[in-house]
Amino acid sequence: MEYTTKAITVRYSETDQMHFVHHSNYLKYFELARLEWLSDLGISYAKMEREGILMPVVSVGVNYKKPLYFGDTFCVKVTLKQLPKATLDFEYLIVNQNDELICTGHIKLAFLSPQSQRPMRCPDFLAEKFN
Amino acid sequence: MEYTTKAITVRYSETDQMHFVHHSNYLKYFELARLEWLSDLGISYAKMEREGILMPVVSVGVNYKKPLYFGDTFCVKVTLKQLPKATLDFEYLIVNQNDELICTGHIKLAFLSPQSQRPMRCPDFLAEKFN
Amino acid sequence: MEYTTKAITVRYSETDQMHFVHHSNYLKYFELARLEWLSDLGISYAKMEREGILMPVVSVGVNYKKPLYFGDTFCVKVTLKQLPKATLDFEYLIVNQNDELICTGHIKLAFLSPQSQRPMRCPDFLAEKFN
Amino acid sequence: MEYTTKAITVRYSETDQMHFVHHSNYLKYFELARLEWLSDLGISYAKMEREGILMPVVSVGVNYKKPLYFGDTFCVKVTLKQLPKATLDFEYLIVNQNDELICTGHIKLAFLSPQSQRPMRCPDFLAEKFN
Repeated sequence: MEYTTKAITVRYSETDQMHFVHHSNYLKYFELARLEWLSDLGISYAKMEREGILMPVVSVGVNYKKPLYFGDTFCVKVTLKQLPKATLDFEYLIVNQNDELICTGHIKLAFLSPQSQRPMRCPDFLAEKFN
Repeated sequence: MEYTTKAITVRYSETDQMHFVHHSNYLKYFELARLEWLSDLGISYAKMEREGILMPVVSVGVNYKKPLYFGDTFCVKVTLKQLPKATLDFEYLIVNQNDELICTGHIKLAFLSPQSQRPMRCPDFLAEKFN
Repeated sequence: MEYTTKAITVRYSETDQMHFVHHSNYLKYFELARLEWLSDLGISYAKMEREGILMPVVSVGVNYKKPLYFGDTFCVKVTLKQLPKATLDFEYLIVNQNDELICTGHIKLAFLSPQSQRPMRCPDFLAEKFN
Repeated sequence: MEYTTKAITVRYSETDQMHFVHHSNYLKYFELARLEWLSDLGISYAKMEREGILMPVVSVGVNYKKPLYFGDTFCVKVTLKQLPKATLDFEYLIVNQNDELICTGHIKLAFLSPQSQRPMRCPDFLAEKFN
């Protein structure tokens, strides 16, 4: 399963003095993409959180190929690597307005249960959406 | 003269543990709005910078009325208060998806000349766009 | 009453492509200064929040005099303008390693009560610390 | 070779509504640590940049073990994995005030030459510092 975001424009405040987007901001773009996907599937992450289900990030990796500049427009393509179990494993691509590959990445999320704040399996309503 | 941005969705990373958007992010939304406006007027701020014209912020003020939450959608309305001279004076409103007023603000920008890095008058090509 | 922070070094990620600290980051420096002050007075803001007392920002204003650059070191001087009542009113100065005035600012905070999330007066334990 | 930063306090603005530090901020902590190390070795990264040498990030990876909370204090320990050649390869550990391991990570940086903006070998003055 995969999802591609709407086009997103780089904000001035996302650059640093090297004149590119700061490398930490790609993690924010990835996050934005997976939450937009959830929303598109009819899942409100805000509501999940209010019910006490947290999805902390367990690990990330990013390979930077080309920089993004202020004013560039890009899309994030998210892929779910396998059906969700104890973790959610996403892979990412960012592509700019000229179809150039900007970076690739992956992120693993866990689920924390509302009461115990301990790891739990992916809630059924979420697993079903991805099936 | 005024301009209203497209609808913008609050990103998760823009919240803090008070569960609202961090108050510093409104300045980034204001910036995004004025640069989107320039772009809409056919002015590339990136190109202006490459030619050496900088527009540093001289002063800002924000009045916060209601919080923005993760997942909220908002528009920024920018107004130019007077024709640009030595400074550009913008006023801002942010309104959420329910037409509630989130905050008001104002920002004054100066112009620095390419060579001397000293204040200069608004370049003609920019002043004309706002006339 | 007033408080001056320890020396703080500008982080690379706080700059933008104009080669200065992005103007929104000064609000983060101000916040850092008032929370360091509370901590110095023996007040844990984290604990206040866990007890449900929130202190949202009502208004801010900043006048930028000179830029801060990556690697600069600065102190924030915070002054409480009057004894806390329904709001806390702070004034700020930022001064760099050469004793140059970087900016001045002011911030007004309100208090939200734990149960109702409505405005309330400054809690006594906090007011006493500032007396 | 390795370096450990001074103790750093988590800033309020670095948290998100999950009540932890946002996972993207660890990349900023890593960056801060390697630049503090360079500075400690007598190398001004600001000066390197003015001379046109850029050190963009090629790849990153982070494994998150435990969250950092507002008010926590932590140190970043940086290790250079091998003598610098075409890239600089750093490994990181973050440890909190209770000596708990918060996360581990690694970052690979390249060198871009001033004129061509193309990859080049690590400049001699930098390689010598790490020998």
